[in-house]
Amino acid sequence: MKTFERDELDNLEHRYRTRLINSLSGFKSANLIGSQDVDGQLNLAIVSSVVHLGANPPLIGLVMRPNSVPRHTFANITETGLFTINQVSAEFWQAAHQTSARYAQEQSEFDVVGLTPEFLNDFDAPFVAESQLKYGVKLIEVKPIEVNNTEFVIGEIMQIHVGESAVRADGYVDIESIETVAISGLDSYHVTNRLSRLSYAKPDKPVSSLTLDGQQAAPFENQFAVVQN
Amino acid sequence: MKTFERDELDNLEHRYRTRLINSLSGFKSANLIGSQDVDGQLNLAIVSSVVHLGANPPLIGLVMRPNSVPRHTFANITETGLFTINQVSAEFWQAAHQTSARYAQEQSEFDVVGLTPEFLNDFDAPFVAESQLKYGVKLIEVKPIEVNNTEFVIGEIMQIHVGESAVRADGYVDIESIETVAISGLDSYHVTNRLSRLSYAKPDKPVSSLTLDGQQAAPFENQFAVVQN
Repeated sequence: MKTFERDELDNLEHRYRTRLINSLSGFKSANLIGSQDVDGQLNLAIVSSVVHLGANPPLIGLVMRPNSVPRHTFANITETGLFTINQVSAEFWQAAHQTSARYAQEQSEFDVVGLTPEFLNDFDAPFVAESQLKYGVKLIEVKPIEVNNTEFVIGEIMQIHVGESAVRADGYVDIESIETVAISGLDSYHVTNRLSRLSYAKPDKPVSSLTLDGQQAAPFENQFAVVQN
Repeated sequence: MKTFERDELDNLEHRYRTRLINSLSGFKSANLIGSQDVDGQLNLAIVSSVVHLGANPPLIGLVMRPNSVPRHTFANITETGLFTINQVSAEFWQAAHQTSARYAQEQSEFDVVGLTPEFLNDFDAPFVAESQLKYGVKLIEVKPIEVNNTEFVIGEIMQIHVGESAVRADGYVDIESIETVAISGLDSYHVTNRLSRLSYAKPDKPVSSLTLDGQQAAPFENQFAVVQN
């Protein structure tokens, strides 16, 4: 194992440290944030920091750096109070990455990277037509993170659009089937292979595999975790 | 496409809605939080909400529900100010999932699921010996998220331990090579296949593939994203 102590981290070359620290959180979600300003100028920005906050009410959070690339997105969100989140798939991952370039405010990233804006069900922010899982979000609150001048944006999910076949019997969405990608570090994109769904863990019995529809399957034969009673 | 409007979401069966909303954020990181109380009682809990906050200083955030399963972890973190984050790999994903069962405070999840605690470099919280990427974290701040009674925990990375061969020449950590898993929904675990690393996006040129060590490779021939100049 290689060890980095805190003082060594501080002495690393700037970009090396950025790549290293960005690799630590594990696989990250790849999402495009769609927004528009009050004049209807569209904006699209890739983010890797969307995180589940709660199901009831349905809430989502994301970290934004107002002074870095998604600054137009942040301005639009706080101006209009609305945005969309669109999962990135293997069909358009390179186009999604290209939205992180520093385009001028008057340029729509939809146009320059070749993705299609669409407006759905009277929601006043642009969705990505190519995305198979997307939802409209209403801004609830921006929490400043003073320690490094970032912002934690909290939003409420107002409508969901998802490829019909991906929604399974128990509500689970098979995002692997729609080729949603994951990100590692700053710039690596991955598709996935499912190991399994697992049963709800209880103290007194070992976990089992679940089918895609959430039905109990047989317990694992060579389970690493053997619960000791 | 299937559409769920806001009022339909509210009327969904409780567990169906929980699974649906948990699927929306995309692939999530799988991490075990190691902690101990002031008497040295160990605790281990899986979380899927670790998010990168910044590289300089090196900061990480995670969402916790103090009243749900990781409540002992949350108490330990606020009591001692220290915890570890350990990436979950395909070698012990079932054991990691089992830590989400409601064990009593006096039971160490390390023992019941069969993972090995280790103390490294004088850091006063337990690491998971089986994990190939792990780091010690000092609590900086807990931000209450009042809208749904959760907490956003902000921590500073104090030391990193990572499988030597996974660290590439430019600082990128190849977490696919150490079989780090990703989570979708509440309970689905996935390994990954890399599409590619991509070059830093600039407005005036198309993105290129990068080697694992961050060297520029040829531009994509059939790139979906064609930048129009």
